[in-house]
Amino acid sequence: MKGQKPLIIFGNGDMAKMMFCYLSDIYNIVAFAVDDECIVETQINNVPVVAFSKLTIDYAPELHCAIVAVGFVEMNKIRQARFESLMQLGYTLVNYIHPSAVIAANAKLGKNVIILEHVSIHPFSEVGDGVFISSQTNLGHHVKIKDHVWINAGVTVAGGSVLGSCCVLGMNASVSHGLVLGSETFVGANVFISGNTEFGDVFLPNEAVKFRMKSQRFLKLLKVI
Amino acid sequence: MKGQKPLIIFGNGDMAKMMFCYLSDIYNIVAFAVDDECIVETQINNVPVVAFSKLTIDYAPELHCAIVAVGFVEMNKIRQARFESLMQLGYTLVNYIHPSAVIAANAKLGKNVIILEHVSIHPFSEVGDGVFISSQTNLGHHVKIKDHVWINAGVTVAGGSVLGSCCVLGMNASVSHGLVLGSETFVGANVFISGNTEFGDVFLPNEAVKFRMKSQRFLKLLKVI
Amino acid sequence: MKGQKPLIIFGNGDMAKMMFCYLSDIYNIVAFAVDDECIVETQINNVPVVAFSKLTIDYAPELHCAIVAVGFVEMNKIRQARFESLMQLGYTLVNYIHPSAVIAANAKLGKNVIILEHVSIHPFSEVGDGVFISSQTNLGHHVKIKDHVWINAGVTVAGGSVLGSCCVLGMNASVSHGLVLGSETFVGANVFISGNTEFGDVFLPNEAVKFRMKSQRFLKLLKVI
Repeated sequence: MKGQKPLIIFGNGDMAKMMFCYLSDIYNIVAFAVDDECIVETQINNVPVVAFSKLTIDYAPELHCAIVAVGFVEMNKIRQARFESLMQLGYTLVNYIHPSAVIAANAKLGKNVIILEHVSIHPFSEVGDGVFISSQTNLGHHVKIKDHVWINAGVTVAGGSVLGSCCVLGMNASVSHGLVLGSETFVGANVFISGNTEFGDVFLPNEAVKFRMKSQRFLKLLKVI
Repeated sequence: MKGQKPLIIFGNGDMAKMMFCYLSDIYNIVAFAVDDECIVETQINNVPVVAFSKLTIDYAPELHCAIVAVGFVEMNKIRQARFESLMQLGYTLVNYIHPSAVIAANAKLGKNVIILEHVSIHPFSEVGDGVFISSQTNLGHHVKIKDHVWINAGVTVAGGSVLGSCCVLGMNASVSHGLVLGSETFVGANVFISGNTEFGDVFLPNEAVKFRMKSQRFLKLLKVI
Repeated sequence: MKGQKPLIIFGNGDMAKMMFCYLSDIYNIVAFAVDDECIVETQINNVPVVAFSKLTIDYAPELHCAIVAVGFVEMNKIRQARFESLMQLGYTLVNYIHPSAVIAANAKLGKNVIILEHVSIHPFSEVGDGVFISSQTNLGHHVKIKDHVWINAGVTVAGGSVLGSCCVLGMNASVSHGLVLGSETFVGANVFISGNTEFGDVFLPNEAVKFRMKSQRFLKLLKVI
């Protein structure tokens, strides 16, 4: 499997360190590229951390592939900007699809797509560039996920819905069928979206109810004895 | 795998077109059967669309198998009626179980059952005829799903609960243990059902809270910078 | 696979009977051990039910392995107590990990851990002794689950959070990143936890909204015709 071009991971945070674990079986990882002002270590897992401004000096774009592994800060705008810079420099942006994910044969995926464990993507769906999809997420049929969207674990998007670029979907959120979500929509965890949304809309779950008893008494009350 | 009887898919909507993708690797699909007044195309994927009233003329029941692939319109009553008609005509109604689904060896499944990716069905459970179960759903132990129930992705049904016929469960909904849901109960997405329900009851999630800021400012407030 | 030491299952309830199904392919199961006053049958699946006070007489600790398969009664305190007793007696406490679960190579698991179908555990996470994790659950990176926690199906715990000992998480619940949940926290189904919790806190979902129409009329209103 290591016959591919050596890989550069963009990022040095938890996301980059996590993706190192997934990617190191498949790629020869030769550098972490980081914005010059964000460098904290010189090495991560014995791999050099390289200032982005100097990346092309030792890591020629035509000889390396790259993947952006950064969180959704600034509604994915950082991830988007670094993806675009790496593309302009001429690096080959690659995908990571966990082998347990099931993706319909006619689904389309962009570049720099990360899809984790037990995801399913139903037929006729499309996933843009730079999209991150965490574990146990389902995209229904004819769903369209635009560029640089971030989808946390356990999300379900029903058939025919379109997620605008740079949206963030929280854990276990659900999106009804046939909707259009404006770009940069933020959907909180466990939220159900039942209508279209506008650019930058934020939807949060209702507060859970804090019960007045401690849990052991509560269970007795419920007859879970 | 194509040694089975040739297959007729009942339906011509998104559900039928989606199931064509799943089924075409396994079966030789020879027709889409459609209610006479619902025919719009003469072919789908080069497979003829046939009026249901004339189906038996060219597709003898003893030589073909069939599967109903229709959505939950009219609380699954259309799916149920077409299933019953096809059975009466003598077709062999078949199941589709995605290979990633894990179904306990002692679980029982009816006919015309569709189970998609990453579903799990725990021991001692029973699933009736015509049941549709979308991806990442879990049925706990001793669960009983009656005929023609529709379960969207990400649902969890806890141990010992019984879902009456033709119920619809929305995405990421949960049903507590040991309950009995009346037939045709509609459970909205992200809803938790904690008590028994009556015939035709409808439960909807609370509206999400729309926050007054746009998402980029909201993330700064949350210190996700 | 049956070359291991013969296995004793602690428990005689639904959890024990369910785990028998999962474990009987892997182990030679020789006894169900049960608190003396809880014995109801003398055999389950032709395997003898043995009073815990007399277990060591016929089932020498050095020759047998064991697993506690009891529900979360008393906020997991029974499970914890029996685990500790079996350890003290010298039995080897074993794990059950369903083969479809994906667990990061650098994740750490304690003893008597049960992990069911389609679970994913991301890199750098730790799971303590006696933890039960049901299907389709995701633990993010750097998550720490302390001893005897019970996690129902469909749960997501975001990166870096710590769950105190003996917590219970309901179906499809979500825990935000970087939190600390006090031990014995009870999180209801479909609840999102966004802040730290204290010992024994109980959080329940908001009641679903019961709609005034029956489901068939409701679907017509929604134009799902």
